[in-house]
Amino acid sequence: MRAEAAAGRAGGIVGLVPTMGFFHEGHLSLMRAARAECGLAVVSLFVNPTQFGPGEDLAAYPKDFDRDCALAAAEGIDIMFAPEPGEVYASDHATFVNVERITAGLCGASRPVHFRGVATVVAKLFNICRPRRAYFGLKDYQQARAIETMIRDLNFDVDLVRCPIVREPDGVAMSSRNTYLSPEERRAAPVLRRSLVAAGQGIERGERDAGAVARQLCHAIETEPLARVDYAEVVDADSLAPLTRIGRAALLAVAVQIGRARLIDNLVVETAS
Amino acid sequence: MRAEAAAGRAGGIVGLVPTMGFFHEGHLSLMRAARAECGLAVVSLFVNPTQFGPGEDLAAYPKDFDRDCALAAAEGIDIMFAPEPGEVYASDHATFVNVERITAGLCGASRPVHFRGVATVVAKLFNICRPRRAYFGLKDYQQARAIETMIRDLNFDVDLVRCPIVREPDGVAMSSRNTYLSPEERRAAPVLRRSLVAAGQGIERGERDAGAVARQLCHAIETEPLARVDYAEVVDADSLAPLTRIGRAALLAVAVQIGRARLIDNLVVETAS
Repeated sequence: MRAEAAAGRAGGIVGLVPTMGFFHEGHLSLMRAARAECGLAVVSLFVNPTQFGPGEDLAAYPKDFDRDCALAAAEGIDIMFAPEPGEVYASDHATFVNVERITAGLCGASRPVHFRGVATVVAKLFNICRPRRAYFGLKDYQQARAIETMIRDLNFDVDLVRCPIVREPDGVAMSSRNTYLSPEERRAAPVLRRSLVAAGQGIERGERDAGAVARQLCHAIETEPLARVDYAEVVDADSLAPLTRIGRAALLAVAVQIGRARLIDNLVVETAS
Repeated sequence: MRAEAAAGRAGGIVGLVPTMGFFHEGHLSLMRAARAECGLAVVSLFVNPTQFGPGEDLAAYPKDFDRDCALAAAEGIDIMFAPEPGEVYASDHATFVNVERITAGLCGASRPVHFRGVATVVAKLFNICRPRRAYFGLKDYQQARAIETMIRDLNFDVDLVRCPIVREPDGVAMSSRNTYLSPEERRAAPVLRRSLVAAGQGIERGERDAGAVARQLCHAIETEPLARVDYAEVVDADSLAPLTRIGRAALLAVAVQIGRARLIDNLVVETAS
């Protein structure tokens, strides 16, 4: 991979789309951006064990390698980099990248080793593939902010390209984990987006009390009997620090358990004041 | 620096000598190796605040920038990279590289944030300068092992070049911190090397009990009234894990406070059994 990337750099810039596979339209939108902007478009496919905690869905994570290869090829991707865990991590792997503060709340609170694993594997992928641009979807907003912070703090020569959330027609954010949902649970899933939009409309109508917005968001999700709220928060869109009063740019972020799927979604609301 | 390094890479390999300045023969030996082996020889000079704990000697650390520049120039160094702390760390810097296990004992036990700071700044320097080779002195043996581990675990495309300890005629390992010693304290400093050599001779005569060697080492240092032992240990030379029985390659490592200087030294002893 290192040699292929070096050859690719000679003819243009390298673009990297880091993924865990089982591609949906969200992944494909990242690939299209990389394909349009880069001389060498690389997709990494690696279900990274260090970002899963005990009891999480590492073993169950959905896979379809042949289908993924066909979809990436159809998008014109040059290289699918799909290493085995034993190639990525030495048996005595000992080095971890920690991004503090920005990873403390939201998903970091319920998944304590998650962002350490994400930052570590992305640092590894950056050093192996040496991309000039890396493509991340904004469904994983906190992940994108953590990687942006890592890029700045460790001086990686990489631009993170933020790509918009891709949604199903009923508003559900595309996620490989949506496959965990039964048909009945799938019918409950639009409650995330519906509740976020309603809370955003509250802000647009003038609500500035972040606690009130968060409570409204939480109650709206709880109207769905199959949904169990992990968190429903209103934080600063840059620092991800909790807000009391909504200022310039707020992130409304939710994580909701429906059946055995833990679904996340978010909405950035910008206000003039 | 990034642009200069990119230009340098076009004509050969980049070699990096990371330092905190106040150069002595140890530093110069690293520069000579880099100069001999690399197309572009870069010395970084940065007294890295994140590797000093509270109450350590960050503010007192000796400096002589003009003399350092002259010495580096005399060794034929191409670039002296001497950024200010505010250029290296954002005011809200949040990302740290942790190398686990290998940094837990020895200096890591008495200096809990030290190796986190070292690994973080070296990762930054690697990403800024993109060296193919990086030169580290073996007085800081644990540091060299930590950076070797980071290079492997984060897939940096860098070869760490281990350079031998450079000593004064009386055996004292060269260190910028030797300047903290009064003349009387300086006369006490050879006790580190003398004790290490004596302990190594014990192993050569057949001693294999690591605890006995460590006790001998400690007692030998304590014969010097001005010396206060921080640690005197016998560990595996690769993993730095404590040994009970001395095997293939043992590291004898000491840290000793003399006056206001904390001095370190070490000896690798290889045995046939």
